[in-house]
This record gives sequence, C-alpha cells and structure tokens, in this order.
Amino acid sequence: MKKTLLLLALVALPAIAGEGKWTPQQVLELDPGWLKKQGLQVPPKRLWDPKRGTGLLAGTVNVGGCSGAFISSTGLVITNHHCVFSIVQEHSSPQRDLITQGFLATSREAELPGKGARIQVPRSFTDVTKEVLASVPAGADDLARYRAIDRKQKELVAECEKRPATRCQVATFDGGLQYVLVDSVELRDVRLVYAPPRAVGEFGGEEDNWMWPRHTGDFSIIRAYTAPDGSSAAYSEKNVPFKAEFFFPLATRGVKPGDFVMVLGYPGITFRALLAEEMAERQARFYPRIIDVYGELIRILEEEGDKDPAGKIAVASTLKSLHNRYKNAGGQLAGLKRGRIIEKHREAEEAVVRWAEKNGQHAEALRARAELRSRIEGMGKTWEREFQLGNLRAGAKGQALAVLLARLARERALPDLERRPEFMERELARLKDQVEREQKNLFLPAEKRLLQAFVRRAQALGPEERIAAVDKHFGAKASEKEVAAKIDAMYAGTKVLTLAERMAMFTETAAQLQARKDPLLAYALDLATEVAALEELRDRRDGAAQRLRPVWRRAVLAHAGKPVAPDANSTLRVSFARVQGYAPRDGVFHTPQTTLSGVLAKHTGAEPFDVPDKLLAAADAKRFGPWVDPALKDVPVDFLSDADTTGGNSGSPTVNGKGELVGVNFDRVWENVANDFGFNPDVARNVSVDVRYVLWMLDQVEDADALLRELGVRKGPPVAQEKR
Amino acid sequence: MKKTLLLLALVALPAIAGEGKWTPQQVLELDPGWLKKQGLQVPPKRLWDPKRGTGLLAGTVNVGGCSGAFISSTGLVITNHHCVFSIVQEHSSPQRDLITQGFLATSREAELPGKGARIQVPRSFTDVTKEVLASVPAGADDLARYRAIDRKQKELVAECEKRPATRCQVATFDGGLQYVLVDSVELRDVRLVYAPPRAVGEFGGEEDNWMWPRHTGDFSIIRAYTAPDGSSAAYSEKNVPFKAEFFFPLATRGVKPGDFVMVLGYPGITFRALLAEEMAERQARFYPRIIDVYGELIRILEEEGDKDPAGKIAVASTLKSLHNRYKNAGGQLAGLKRGRIIEKHREAEEAVVRWAEKNGQHAEALRARAELRSRIEGMGKTWEREFQLGNLRAGAKGQALAVLLARLARERALPDLERRPEFMERELARLKDQVEREQKNLFLPAEKRLLQAFVRRAQALGPEERIAAVDKHFGAKASEKEVAAKIDAMYAGTKVLTLAERMAMFTETAAQLQARKDPLLAYALDLATEVAALEELRDRRDGAAQRLRPVWRRAVLAHAGKPVAPDANSTLRVSFARVQGYAPRDGVFHTPQTTLSGVLAKHTGAEPFDVPDKLLAAADAKRFGPWVDPALKDVPVDFLSDADTTGGNSGSPTVNGKGELVGVNFDRVWENVANDFGFNPDVARNVSVDVRYVLWMLDQVEDADALLRELGVRKGPPVAQEKR
Repeated sequence: MKKTLLLLALVALPAIAGEGKWTPQQVLELDPGWLKKQGLQVPPKRLWDPKRGTGLLAGTVNVGGCSGAFISSTGLVITNHHCVFSIVQEHSSPQRDLITQGFLATSREAELPGKGARIQVPRSFTDVTKEVLASVPAGADDLARYRAIDRKQKELVAECEKRPATRCQVATFDGGLQYVLVDSVELRDVRLVYAPPRAVGEFGGEEDNWMWPRHTGDFSIIRAYTAPDGSSAAYSEKNVPFKAEFFFPLATRGVKPGDFVMVLGYPGITFRALLAEEMAERQARFYPRIIDVYGELIRILEEEGDKDPAGKIAVASTLKSLHNRYKNAGGQLAGLKRGRIIEKHREAEEAVVRWAEKNGQHAEALRARAELRSRIEGMGKTWEREFQLGNLRAGAKGQALAVLLARLARERALPDLERRPEFMERELARLKDQVEREQKNLFLPAEKRLLQAFVRRAQALGPEERIAAVDKHFGAKASEKEVAAKIDAMYAGTKVLTLAERMAMFTETAAQLQARKDPLLAYALDLATEVAALEELRDRRDGAAQRLRPVWRRAVLAHAGKPVAPDANSTLRVSFARVQGYAPRDGVFHTPQTTLSGVLAKHTGAEPFDVPDKLLAAADAKRFGPWVDPALKDVPVDFLSDADTTGGNSGSPTVNGKGELVGVNFDRVWENVANDFGFNPDVARNVSVDVRYVLWMLDQVEDADALLRELGVRKGPPVAQEKR
Repeated sequence: MKKTLLLLALVALPAIAGEGKWTPQQVLELDPGWLKKQGLQVPPKRLWDPKRGTGLLAGTVNVGGCSGAFISSTGLVITNHHCVFSIVQEHSSPQRDLITQGFLATSREAELPGKGARIQVPRSFTDVTKEVLASVPAGADDLARYRAIDRKQKELVAECEKRPATRCQVATFDGGLQYVLVDSVELRDVRLVYAPPRAVGEFGGEEDNWMWPRHTGDFSIIRAYTAPDGSSAAYSEKNVPFKAEFFFPLATRGVKPGDFVMVLGYPGITFRALLAEEMAERQARFYPRIIDVYGELIRILEEEGDKDPAGKIAVASTLKSLHNRYKNAGGQLAGLKRGRIIEKHREAEEAVVRWAEKNGQHAEALRARAELRSRIEGMGKTWEREFQLGNLRAGAKGQALAVLLARLARERALPDLERRPEFMERELARLKDQVEREQKNLFLPAEKRLLQAFVRRAQALGPEERIAAVDKHFGAKASEKEVAAKIDAMYAGTKVLTLAERMAMFTETAAQLQARKDPLLAYALDLATEVAALEELRDRRDGAAQRLRPVWRRAVLAHAGKPVAPDANSTLRVSFARVQGYAPRDGVFHTPQTTLSGVLAKHTGAEPFDVPDKLLAAADAKRFGPWVDPALKDVPVDFLSDADTTGGNSGSPTVNGKGELVGVNFDRVWENVANDFGFNPDVARNVSVDVRYVLWMLDQVEDADALLRELGVRKGPPVAQEKR
C-alpha cells in the first residue's frame, strides 16, 4: 500500500471545499482558480452553460424526489435502490420475488416499466423575482401578500407547463430574496434495468441507516424512453431510449482518500437561513416532540406487527419511514449540541447585527430580525395543536386518507389557481396513485391504536387549543374505553378503507361525501375544516416571513461580501468536496472507505445482514476482477466525502474533477444529520456507493455483460477477456 | 499540530516489537542492536543485572497479584486504582466516603495503612530445574511424578523463605522445561497516599471495561515502609519510607504516537504453549460454559440486587468480578475467531511436526504431542462435573466458604509440605482475612438462588458424573420446590454466614466441624471429599503433562532457533512495544490517545460516567497546567500500545526508552482478549493511563503540591509558579 494513500485514508483533511450547496448560476460566479485548486479539471462552463441550458448539470436528473444521473447516451440513469424500489415492488410477486432476488433485464424488451415513475431533466432557470414581487398589491397585509405571491407562482408554472412534457416550479431562495422559475423536461417512460437483491441494496437496514461504517450497495439502474421522434411520451412498445446529450462516464479507477469530488443533485430542504432563535425553537420543541410522538407510533406498529405476519408486512413501509424520521430527529438534536450549531449561528448573527448597527444602512434589516424573533413567541399557545394537525399523515392511515378526501373535495370546488398546490390538477394523477397505493399499508388493529393515540393526545390539549372535531366525535373527556368503542364503530362503519369505495370518493364533492353518512368521513370533514383554517393561519405567518426574511437576508449576504450558497429548496445544486474520514468521538477515527471484507464481516445470515449467496460465492472465491482498490487490496464498497448534502440528494451522482462518476450518494452519517442547520466541517460527511462496487456487482456477481458494454466499461467479447 | 505526529496517531504501524513477555534473563539474550533499534536508549544491563539482582526491573513490584512501580526513592509506588481499592474501602465509611471522594494524604502521618497489603520486590531468579527434575523417582507414575515435583517446589520455597521478610515461588516455564526459584523481599507496611475519586479511577465502569476509546484514570499511589534499619516490618508508627534503589522517574513530557515503550510487570497466566487441539477444546467447551453459567449467576445477582438497595451493595463486588470474567470469555471466543489464532497455531504446530519428522531427532517430541492430544478426549465424560466442582467459588458464597472450611480442616491435619499450596501455613493469614472479608458480600436472597442454580445443574448431570453430595443432601430428583425448601432449611440452620462463628470454624478440625451438626457444613464436608478426589485426578493429569509437554516444547523451541518468550506465569516480564492505534473493524480506526475533552464528552452525570465536580471545574476552566499534549492540544488521558500483556499486568509501569514512566497499564482492548492464546499484531493493544493525566489530576485537580515535589515534578514554591 502506498504510504501517502494510507495516510490520506486516516487523516481528517482541512475542510477547504465542503460547505455550500451551490446553484448552477453560483458555480459560474465562484473563482475558477479556486475551483481548479480544489480539483475541478474541467472549465466551470462545462458544468453549466446557462444560455444553452446545457453542461454536466443537465445530466443530473430528478427521479421522483430523489436525484439521479445519466450514465450513457442511451438513457441509462443510476440512482439509489431505495429511490426506485417501488418499481421493483410493483413487479414483484411471491412467484417472482424481485425484491429478494434483485432484477437484471437480459434485453431491452425485458426492462420493467415503472407505473408513475418520472424523470425530470433540467432545461432552464429564469429569475422571476421582479414579476413575483410586483404581484403583491400595495398595502397588502401578510395574508394578501402570501396569496398574491402564491398565485403569481402558480401562474408562472401554468404558463411554463403549456410547453409539452414540461414540469416547472418557482423556487424561493433566501426566504424570498430571489424567485427562480425552473423548467424541466419530464420523461414519462421509465423502466427498471437493474436492481440488486434487497440484501445488497438495503444491506444493514435500519440498524446501519445514517451510520458509518456502511456496507450498503444502495444503487439501481433505470432507463428513460421517449417517442421515436425524441419527444417525451407515456410508455409504449414503440418508444426508444432517451438520447442523453450529457451523461457521466464511469470512472472505472474509482476514488481514493483525498480526491476531489462533486455531488450533484436536488437537495430538498435545509434551515440554515433561520435565525438562531428559530433554530432554538425547533431544538426545544419540534424534534423532542417528533421523538415523543413518532416513538409512540413506532411502538404501536411494532407491537401490532409482531402479533400478525400479514400485519407486519403491511406496516413495514410505514415503520421504515417513521424510523427514518425518528432517528433523524435524534441526530438533529445530537448534532446541534455537538457542533454548537445554534451557538455558532447566534455568534455569526450577532456579528451581522453589530456590523449593521455600525453601518447604518441596514436599520430595516435589524427591524426585520426583531420582528421575526418576536413572532416565535406568538406561536407558543397553540403549538401542540398545530403539531398534531400538522402530522396527521404519520398517524392512522384511515384518518389521514379521509381528511385528504375531504380536503380534496372542497379544494376541487375552487378554480385551479386558487387551490393549495397539492390539490391542483397537475398533481391529481399522482395523488390518486398515492391514495390507491396506501391500500397495501393498511392494517386494522394498528390503525385503531394509532387513532386512539391521536385522540388521547388531542384530549390532553389545553382549553385554548382544542381540536373541535375530536371533541365532537369522540368526546373531550371520554374515557379510553369509550374512545376505543367509538373508534371500533367508526372503522366498522367506514368505507374509506375499501379500495374501490375510496377511489370513488376521490372524485366526489364534499356534499357527496357528507351524504354517505360514513362516520370516518363525517369526522374527517370536520377535521379538514380545522386543518384548512390552520393553513390560512400559516399562510398569513408565511406572508410575514416573506415580508421580513429577505430584508434580513440581504444584510447577511452583504455582510458576507462573497457568494453564499442558499438553503436547499429541491433545485439543482453542486457541492464540492473531498474523500475523507472523520473522528466521530475521542479516540476513534472513521476511515473513508469500506470494503467487501467488511461486508463479509457483517454477514450474519439474518436480516439485515444477510449477504446473498451469489455475492458470497464471488467474494469467497476472491473473484474481484479489475475492481480491486490497489491500496485497500479489496473491492471498495462505500466511501465518505465532506459534501454538503441533505434529503433529496439520494441518488446524486458523486463525480470526480473530470466529471466522471465515482459513486452514488445515498446517505449522511449520523453525526452530520444536523447539517440541515449548519455545516460542521469536522463531521460533515456524506456516504456514496463506490462505482467499483456497482461494477463488481454487475461484472462478477451478475454477469451483466451487455449492460457493462453499454456503459463503455467492457469492449469486445466480454467473457473471454475476464479471468473467472 | 505537527503533521508527522498526526499521521502517527492514525496509522497502524508494522508490529516490530510487540510479541513476547520476556523474562529478565531473556532480555539479556536478545540482540542489543535490535533493542536499540526498537527504541531502548539504555543498555539492556540497566534493565537487569542478574548477578546483583538489580536494575530497572528491580523497581517493578508485585502488589497483591497486580504489578506496580517505584516512582521515588522514598517508597512511593504507582499502581492501578482497582489494585489498592481494598485499602480505600477499608478506610471508607458513610461519614468519610473515600471511595467516592478519593483520598490524598496531606502529610506522611495521614497516609492510610492497608490491612494485609503487601509489596514484593524482586531480588533474584535461580534456575532450579535440575533439582526439581532430580526429585522424581525412577519409574514414578504420573501422580507420583506430580507429587514429587510439588514437594520439591515446596521444599525449595520453604528453604528460601527462611530468610526474613522473604517471599519465594518456584515458577514453571514451558510446562516444566525449566523451573526457576523466584526470591522477593516482602514489604508489609503499605500505606495509601493518593486515590482518585472512584468516578475517575473506575470511569466508564463495566460499560467501558475491556473497551476503547477509554477515559479511565485507573491509578493510585501507595508507599512502602520499613523498620528504621531498612528491614521489612509490620506497620508501626516508627517505620520509615522504604529506600528504593531503583525507581522510575516520571516522564513529564509523556508519550506520542510511534514512541517506543516497555511494559514491565507480573503477567499471570497465558496458554500459548498449549497444543492447538487443547485450545480448540477451551474454545468449544470452556468459554461457552463460562458464558452460560456466569451469565446465569449475573442475572440472579442483578435481579436480587434490584429488589433491595442493601443487597445491591452487598453483591456489587461479586458482580463486578463475574462480569469481568463473563465479558472476558466472550472476548476470548471472538478474538480466537477473528485472529484465526487456533488455525495459525495449528499451522505452526504442523510446521514443527514436519520439521521434526524430517529431522529424526525429535521422535520423542512427536510421541509426546500425540499423547497430549489423545488425553484431551479422555476428559470428555466427566467434563461438566469437573467444571461445576471447579467453579464453586463463583457461586453461592455460603457453599464456597463452607467447602473451604471443610477442606482447610482436613488439610491442616497434614504436614505442611503435604498440603495443597493454598492451605499451607504461609497462606493461612491471607486466607483467614479472605474468609472474614466475604461477610460484606453476603446477601441471603441471592445466596439461596445461587445455590439453587448450582443444585439444578448438578441434578442434570449424567449418570457417570453425579455429584454425590448434592444427590445426598438435596435429592437427585428432588423438585425445584423441594430443593428450595431444603436450601431454606440449610441457610436457616447454618452458622457459616455468621462472622464470629465462621472465624471460629476457621481453626476447627473436621471432627469439630462435623460435631456442629450444621446442615451447610455437613453438606460441604461431603462435597469437599469429592473436590479433594477430583484434585487428585487432576494432579495425576498434571503429572502426565509435566512428563510430556517439556518434551514437545523442547522441539518447538529448537525449531524456532531463537529466543521464544514463555507463557506468563506470574513472574517478572518485559514487553517491548510502540504507542499505536488499531483498526477494530472495516471503516474504523482507533486512534491511540484519548483526551480530557473525551472525558467531558462521556460525562452524563450518572454512573459510570459521572465526572467529579472538581475535575469538571478544572477542565471547564481549561486549567491544563503544563500537561497539555502539544499535538492533541489537550490533556491526554489514556493511550494504546502493542505491548504483550495479560491479567496480572494491572498496574504495570509503562516506561519509555530511557526507563522513565510514561503511563500505568490497566487493561487490554476487547479485540485483544484472546492474545492469551496467541498474539495478533493487528489488534494486540494494551491500555495505559497517561502519566500526564496522573500529573494533571495531582496538580490541577488535587493541588497535591507536596506529592508533586516528592515526585521531582515540581520545585520551589509551587503555587506562585502556576497560572491558576
């Protein structure tokens, strides 16, 4: 092993690049010399040319809330296993258990179309700040401001989406300092090409989730198709592979510690532009309550699942998502404390305040900050009620579905542009699909206990924050037993959990729903009224924030005097990073790469550490092929870098300085969960699958010759060339 | 931070020195050039001069089964907190809780004498192999061989101990290839000078035991006293500090990663000279049964302790020792597997066999090996019975004490040289003390359940391995309930648990004990007969091993063709090592030093992570004094090196190449427990308290000025010099 490589593997390098999820535009504003010094070997313009809407970033796509990357000119996209799991699930049956076995299409014809699977390819970013702000009438109060901005955004999107196969959004930066219209091509024929066995794609399961050392092969390969003329089209046998102008060649030599990498993708949401006091509020109330409430939900689902094998399967997906948020909340709290993130934020904020006070130009910013701070307190009185009404989706599915149907019925009565975004026409197909899919997650005994838990918490609310629907339908002071009896009756009498009935309800008016005299619907219609009222309250509050935060942020940015990457908002970003480990605690260092030996060392034969036989066979026989890391003398599996990522970066391509794919991002480490609030360079590490593990799987485990040839990794007659 | 230092902290260095617990004589046989290259800066002769019985090794003492080191010419000895805990306990009371508060003698007069505390200072090592072997009569069978050797050893010890204040032992090397008479001066006036609060000395408790990262300040300082004429004497106010000719100056600059260190001390017992098949037998039966039986005992003590606060205190010490062995057994099994220790041993053994077969000279050795292997099978039939009778001490105290009294009564009837070693006159004072001390560990509800567990296991034994005493006193097929009733009656009727009565029994004959008609004693007298018979069986077996193993080992050593360090046998040894970390698993590296920040990070305010206020105050105020490590920028706490240690090395001085004390050894890491069977350089790491943590505690936390001056660390008026 070369000494320098070894040393790099073991040393925490100074964070020179990590912080910042840069927008495509900002990349062009950064000093090209600095970028070159970091390790970028192509001109920044190769990343993104805003005029033409082209460049490597155009190869970075949105895969249903995840990120992904074109890796061939023939429409192949690599993303995470968990991002396209629903396609695997859709085609899986007890007779053909693709979930367990994995799937490799042996020909183009064999690829599996994913119902509702979509890929969005970025086309252009247009600053629409002036138009958006101009829409606010003079003298508008906060609610009117919110509504004007909301409507303008919807109009811009509607106009943009007149172009065929187009998906648009207006993204808000720095709380409203800038609005950008994002225009993407939506590809609607997406097919599964390769998914590893679940025991590879989810190796380590909940236990390893958010953790390092990690040994998960969380990747899958899909392909986008278009009509023969290249236009986006729904699934058809006549369709042809999408011709990707920009794609990431695979870096077959992989990465080594110290290497420069970029993570490209669509990070969802972060909170770094919040005031320190706003962060403190989340720390003090929000995350502890998530742990409290979600912890209870998890306990209920686990207990009920343990009583019934079919129930266990039904609740599995819900449990997974609850666990994920629960663990995340714990990580946020631990990370905020460990990184002193709020304290540091407060210090930085105070530096801006001192500067603004001296400067004199920013009196308005100081007033805005003061008002934002004063508004935090106002939220106190009904905070618990808001939390409970705001988290209906995490609880009983019947309640959540019934409320959704009730809300949909009322919203649909409004003109499209006046509806809440999630109920607009452009969303209804997807929403309908969701309402249908929930069927497989229903499990009545768990349902009832989840609702009971919700009612119990609602009953305990203070006099100023009653949930009237609960008081009306269950009784404000009803005993547990009485509530249980009412819940039994409600579930006995409802048709919401019957698929055909529910799908019929999806198109009904509020009056029709009411006329059904369905007890769960009756309760939900009342509850929906309260939710809608609460949302109006929130709109007003958001209107105030839209009025205040940009003013404050303008001062913050002026004080910085250099480009500052904005909070994540599901738009395309780039993070510059380096492959490196970190010290999770005194006396311990997490080295930045894991290996196939580590996979075997974790193998117990039982979930979630049950390595598939074909992988074991290849590993035991040391059939490494050309995918051995020369320093590790083993097949590399996952690696760490200090990229600035968050949820939504799942499936992000991790690429080297030449723009070649070296890995697929799929997680952050536990110590780094709180980077949503602030970047702590000591522990800011994202986790990627090493491209060589992807290639080793395809080559040595799956014999995926055709695919490897298509990826440009193998030439000529494949089998003869390899030593097997 | 200097880059090289950082790198050294993070890299697993090639094991160049680690393996081998060398005897003083062997150190002189090793290549001095090699030792110098390792980092030894003094001539090997400075370590040990066998003619004069002097050198640095003479400063390494035995402290009641632990190791220790003189650190001043005035009799100060440093060892582990857990090695002198009994002195702290002896002087502790609810009114003066030295256990919790710790203790610092403010003057010589204030030092606390330890009842029964002893220090043995090595004086000479004499090869007595010829005499021992000559004692075996021609044609002796295995039992006669064992008895002849046993008797000869006792005679040599008795002769040796005629000299005043002398403690001797005949140590066996390589299964009987060599016998060495070890002659030590025994100092009998030992006083406590400093013990840290338990929350420092045992920081991390069971949870961190055997673990890294570690943050325990497991050290204490005692002082040896002699009569004014320098001769060893019992405690007296007239006594004066022992004048130590050899002692270890404190290396106030500490150690850094990569530094050469030596660990000196009295390692207890290791098993590396066993045949691979003998190791495999331990792996297959012994350790799993320890985990099974001790696990049950632990469960009982914890359950009963949880019911009663006084009971919890009573069982605490027993629990600690059970936990330690339980965890150790798990570590042995994990380490044997991880290090492929038995496989490697088998390969090495087979290499010797092949060599011997070719060589022709060692036919006898091959026969000896074959017979040793064949004897393993013979043990199968009554293995379970032997295990149970061999582990009485771990179970019910009443049973163990009663059996001890019964055996003592019978042994005392024999001439001293014919008794088993533990019942010889020279041991009786210590034994009496033990029998007295057990009083504080008694807790009747736990007692009864422990005995019940023993009876249940005995009842389950096969027909060839019945324990007759159990069948007689409880019934071979008695129900749990019947047994419980008999145990109740036994404990209701016995006086063994009454201190004064028990101490009277200590001097009684078997007939007197029998005449008491004490039901527990009656049972124990029967059980003791079986134990004695079993011991004879074992003596015969040991006689066979004494006949066979040296023959095989001679071939092994001849094959090696270079010095091979023998198994530990509680005699003085040196291990040469380097400060370095290790990789416990894929993706993780344990760095070799921990810091005060790490102590604070573990602090929860609750046991076992409850940092004392005075330490917190000093740490929070960053009152580091001169004890900061320049690379760590923090006070170092514990460090790792690859020294070859085992039980008995507790309290061993860890010294640098100049012979200065850099730390006090107190543990091995979990991954290294199985080094008792073979050295695995990848994970062979011992844990020492850094001398700078010792000094920081004395200086910044305890204000122990006088002590620091005596240690040569502080000169002149101390307080004025320090920034506080």
